[in-house]
Amino acid sequence: MDTVSDRRLVALLRRYGADEAERVGARIDPLLWNDVLAVQLAHRSVRKFLPEKVSESHLRAIVAAASSAASSSNLQLWSVIAVTDRERLGRIAELAGNQESVRNAPLLLVWVADLARAARLATRRGRDLVNAGYLESAVLGIVDTTLAAQNAALAAESLGLGTVFIGALRDHPTDLASELALPDHSFAVVGLVVGRPDPAEYPEVKPRLGQDVVLHREQYGSGAEDGEEEGVAAYEDAIAQFYRGQGLPDSWSERVLGRFAAPGALGHREGLRQALLQRGFGFE
Amino acid sequence: MDTVSDRRLVALLRRYGADEAERVGARIDPLLWNDVLAVQLAHRSVRKFLPEKVSESHLRAIVAAASSAASSSNLQLWSVIAVTDRERLGRIAELAGNQESVRNAPLLLVWVADLARAARLATRRGRDLVNAGYLESAVLGIVDTTLAAQNAALAAESLGLGTVFIGALRDHPTDLASELALPDHSFAVVGLVVGRPDPAEYPEVKPRLGQDVVLHREQYGSGAEDGEEEGVAAYEDAIAQFYRGQGLPDSWSERVLGRFAAPGALGHREGLRQALLQRGFGFE
Repeated sequence: MDTVSDRRLVALLRRYGADEAERVGARIDPLLWNDVLAVQLAHRSVRKFLPEKVSESHLRAIVAAASSAASSSNLQLWSVIAVTDRERLGRIAELAGNQESVRNAPLLLVWVADLARAARLATRRGRDLVNAGYLESAVLGIVDTTLAAQNAALAAESLGLGTVFIGALRDHPTDLASELALPDHSFAVVGLVVGRPDPAEYPEVKPRLGQDVVLHREQYGSGAEDGEEEGVAAYEDAIAQFYRGQGLPDSWSERVLGRFAAPGALGHREGLRQALLQRGFGFE
Repeated sequence: MDTVSDRRLVALLRRYGADEAERVGARIDPLLWNDVLAVQLAHRSVRKFLPEKVSESHLRAIVAAASSAASSSNLQLWSVIAVTDRERLGRIAELAGNQESVRNAPLLLVWVADLARAARLATRRGRDLVNAGYLESAVLGIVDTTLAAQNAALAAESLGLGTVFIGALRDHPTDLASELALPDHSFAVVGLVVGRPDPAEYPEVKPRLGQDVVLHREQYGSGAEDGEEEGVAAYEDAIAQFYRGQGLPDSWSERVLGRFAAPGALGHREGLRQALLQRGFGFE
């Protein structure tokens, strides 16, 4: 009973719930499966870790994976800061919504959009970073950094570690930059907590929107937008059980609207523009 | 001779060149290796493909991998458009620096930062997307989209397909949005060409900056910035051979400065701000 199609079906069931797993599974060749897909589909965000450290060996392998992600024109516009000092983690947690997963992190990787390396190159050669103020430069940095971070997360998971991304590192970019001694032309895009998952609190895989909601053909809306309401309604059924198990409100739609349609919901992150301007980025 | 440590050493050699591969390899447990790391470290950008199509089966598996990436607060702020129509690919190529890899793409996946789904939810419930104009909302969308795209790229590579990211989809965001019927509150962050690599033009792995250049400990600069000049000089040696093999100028530093220190080097992408403002994003 441990055939490829059994293992794949279980992975799809956890990722999509029963109905969508059946639809998606029917569209995939029965023999198509591998270890990469298995680790990817098994992703869950882990927030409780055993106290053991992440080894130097694991860290080096994770960084090699990050470095192996694509980079726009090979510019490599990112750095990563490995934080393990307990007092520093405590201070960073206070800047990031007081998340226990940060305070107790075996390892926090801070993913930095880094145009400061280019700025130092320019200084050494008597040049100026004249294009740093364009929105495109910030986007280049964010995309490069995020590609690297996702490879790192998957590498960690492939090694039996758990991860959770911390967007709240954008709550107080200026204070965080001081804490991490970030130079001008750099900012922390996102954090990644890494550690050995506490098996007593290992979470379930979180269901996602069905494929027909996110996948469009040739043009936006020619496939997926048709039937979106039904697709979202089906997803609400799949996710409600998950959210209830976590003691969270069970409507995904209200979660989305709570972020974007409620005045003040972005909290401190309303200040991101001002902080990034101070850090040498621009939105020209 | 096909032990774990042999396979890992070859992967590190290709990724870092001989000197840095030895340094990194010495810091990793001899038995630490797996299929995920192997696929990640073997990444190269493929620009020449066989004409065969990417199967629906592969596409569905790739989308399942994309959906499995982390998403900030599970907001799932992305969509993907699968483009295979040859005439449309030709028009998109013209908007993206006339890249042959786009024109001849077996499959182009366009990764869309998608707040339009939230906008439709809001409309259906009589609400307004009052926070769409904040920079944080654009960053949320870009990060979510890029995490998904990287998982997709790796999934494709795990299935024996080749990929190349296309940042030039940001050259003409307004025209591209028309071509793809993108609604307000969405924009194409990056493209990903997917197909069966042409074995006659299968590229080498591109060396990356050494780990001590990108990896910092506790604070930025406390580890990596020391010795950065030497690290970059060592990298110039490793990358020069690669660039020469491609007929490209061989200085990485000049490549970086050519992008950021040369007036006008961003070309059409200087207009990204204006295009995104028109598409319902903001930088408040």
